[in-house]
Amino acid sequence: MQRLKSNPPCIPPRGEIQNPKSKIDVTHYQKLLRISTTGKSLYNITPEIATIVAESGVRTGLCTLFLRHTSASLIIQENADPDVLLDLAEFMAKLVPESAHYIHNAEGPDDMPAHIRTAITHTSEHIPINNGHLVLGTWQGIYIWEHRQRNHSRELVVHVSG
Amino acid sequence: MQRLKSNPPCIPPRGEIQNPKSKIDVTHYQKLLRISTTGKSLYNITPEIATIVAESGVRTGLCTLFLRHTSASLIIQENADPDVLLDLAEFMAKLVPESAHYIHNAEGPDDMPAHIRTAITHTSEHIPINNGHLVLGTWQGIYIWEHRQRNHSRELVVHVSG
Amino acid sequence: MQRLKSNPPCIPPRGEIQNPKSKIDVTHYQKLLRISTTGKSLYNITPEIATIVAESGVRTGLCTLFLRHTSASLIIQENADPDVLLDLAEFMAKLVPESAHYIHNAEGPDDMPAHIRTAITHTSEHIPINNGHLVLGTWQGIYIWEHRQRNHSRELVVHVSG
Repeated sequence: MQRLKSNPPCIPPRGEIQNPKSKIDVTHYQKLLRISTTGKSLYNITPEIATIVAESGVRTGLCTLFLRHTSASLIIQENADPDVLLDLAEFMAKLVPESAHYIHNAEGPDDMPAHIRTAITHTSEHIPINNGHLVLGTWQGIYIWEHRQRNHSRELVVHVSG
Repeated sequence: MQRLKSNPPCIPPRGEIQNPKSKIDVTHYQKLLRISTTGKSLYNITPEIATIVAESGVRTGLCTLFLRHTSASLIIQENADPDVLLDLAEFMAKLVPESAHYIHNAEGPDDMPAHIRTAITHTSEHIPINNGHLVLGTWQGIYIWEHRQRNHSRELVVHVSG
Repeated sequence: MQRLKSNPPCIPPRGEIQNPKSKIDVTHYQKLLRISTTGKSLYNITPEIATIVAESGVRTGLCTLFLRHTSASLIIQENADPDVLLDLAEFMAKLVPESAHYIHNAEGPDDMPAHIRTAITHTSEHIPINNGHLVLGTWQGIYIWEHRQRNHSRELVVHVSG
């Protein structure tokens, strides 16, 4: 494995990334978002998160998302070509097959695979906030990955600090 | 992949999720937890983390867990049926087999698989705190996933901010 | 699966982990780091992150790293034996083969595998800060895992709060 060919330059922050900042007005803003899912799929929740960040009034800070479930997960992924999401789902379907034998199968063949798929993706995600906006890259969207087939109402805690 | 059929409603926070909050008393509380592990297994550390959150006095904030190792990891998973943990372990044993060839094998056949299993799970976990309590879902527990067979003393840094 | 044989002791923090701390001087320090990558590899960025933490002046707090891309990721891994990184890369090459069929392949055979490899590793990483230093374990290094073969300039947002 190679290391960096040269030290990466500590480039002065771009416009949207500000310099050191101290302050005494501190905010911890929390909101519970309920999201209705209708089967195994990736659901783009970026607009909803952006709205909550705007509500919080935080200019420089951190947005943490926490999903209160063990059979659905979070990822940040490509937001442009929906084929990426199809390929992701196909990969996961093969990696953690519903046809395999699992001890825990009380709720059907998608029960245990949902837990495993959650374990190897993410229960929380974190995006810094700069100048009042999430610093997501151009191609990044925030997704809830529902791993269960039947309808669910999922609870996401959005925590904004700054 | 489907998008949300309709925008998920920004439901007013439930009782346990509070509205915006500004404050000037800021806490960063850190504690080092040592956990003795006795072989490959998932160890439920939820009660110990809840105790530290209570000690911190933080009412609205964020709890971050950081494991100072590269051959053990963290996950948040089902806390009710222990069969889920057995199935998780079985899946991981097959996905990252100890029988495969690895260049790095100085400490035995479970050495490199432990690093890989750590890389595809989590070194840190994060749970918001509301009303003085972790906002874990009903079925969520916090686990250290020990990937090495011999006994270890693992160091977990618990950071509570609020 | 076994639970903890006995409750892990809440050992008093070691020297480098301090007791509760309240303060009113609050810092949210953000910096954008640009990192030039030259092919699929793991790039150790620990020194650059440590420098930014020192610049921030934060003594007790949290460092969050956020990578603004969906085809490169972050992991914290063994920093001593470079063979670990070789084995990690080999495992990932087999788990998410470039030779498989993907719908999304506009940018070549390493396009979709890069997205999948990102999804099962991490877009953000988080390391507490104590006594002005990252609490990384002895063997832990912070890596950007570049999953694309051609040269890229990757943007990493470093957020230090304390």
